[in-house]
Amino acid sequence: MDAQSAIGIASIVTAGITMAIGSIAPAIGEGNAVSQALRSIAQQPDEANTISRTLFVGLAMIESTAIYCFVVTMILLFANPFWSWVISP
Amino acid sequence: MDAQSAIGIASIVTAGITMAIGSIAPAIGEGNAVSQALRSIAQQPDEANTISRTLFVGLAMIESTAIYCFVVTMILLFANPFWSWVISP
Amino acid sequence: MDAQSAIGIASIVTAGITMAIGSIAPAIGEGNAVSQALRSIAQQPDEANTISRTLFVGLAMIESTAIYCFVVTMILLFANPFWSWVISP
Repeated sequence: MDAQSAIGIASIVTAGITMAIGSIAPAIGEGNAVSQALRSIAQQPDEANTISRTLFVGLAMIESTAIYCFVVTMILLFANPFWSWVISP
Repeated sequence: MDAQSAIGIASIVTAGITMAIGSIAPAIGEGNAVSQALRSIAQQPDEANTISRTLFVGLAMIESTAIYCFVVTMILLFANPFWSWVISP
Repeated sequence: MDAQSAIGIASIVTAGITMAIGSIAPAIGEGNAVSQALRSIAQQPDEANTISRTLFVGLAMIESTAIYCFVVTMILLFANPFWSWVISP
């Protein structure tokens, strides 16, 4: 196997595995947060605005971990410095 | 095995595994969120509108992690820069 | 093994594995949601319409993750760009 194939296969497999595993925890964490927010709204309907605002800020922070994985995947696919070096003449 | 076969097999297998693993956590997280939303509506029927609105925003955030995996899968299948390079004459 | 066999085997196996793993979590998530919906309807029969509507929207969102896996499987079987390239003369 030549160098281009080896680097390419490693980049492709790592990109997919990174996004796949990186989406597990954010989805479960956001599910827990939304679930508890809805329980809190049912318990204290007068505070629905405060609860919603806090939920959205929290979801944005949790979502950022998935976005990190997405950014790393995009870099591996489209701006991979190892691939750029290995295909340079 | 030549370079085209190796890169192609890696892309196909990674695309499938990414979407398969990437669908696990969003589905469970959304199931938890919907489940708690229905319990909250039964507990506070007067707040059904607020609960539904918060649920839908939360579902959209959870769904986004599955969409990231879908985007990566589509890129691996149809816009794969490694495959484009390896089949270029 | 020639390139056609290798790409064909990878596509077939990945298509099956993707749909098989991708159906696990949506089924569990929808089961949780439906289960809680029935409990909520029993608790608040007057809100059956609201609960049903929220349940159906939630089920559609959960189902979408299974549909992503189905789409990827269909693409691997019928619109596989790697297979199209490897069998082109």
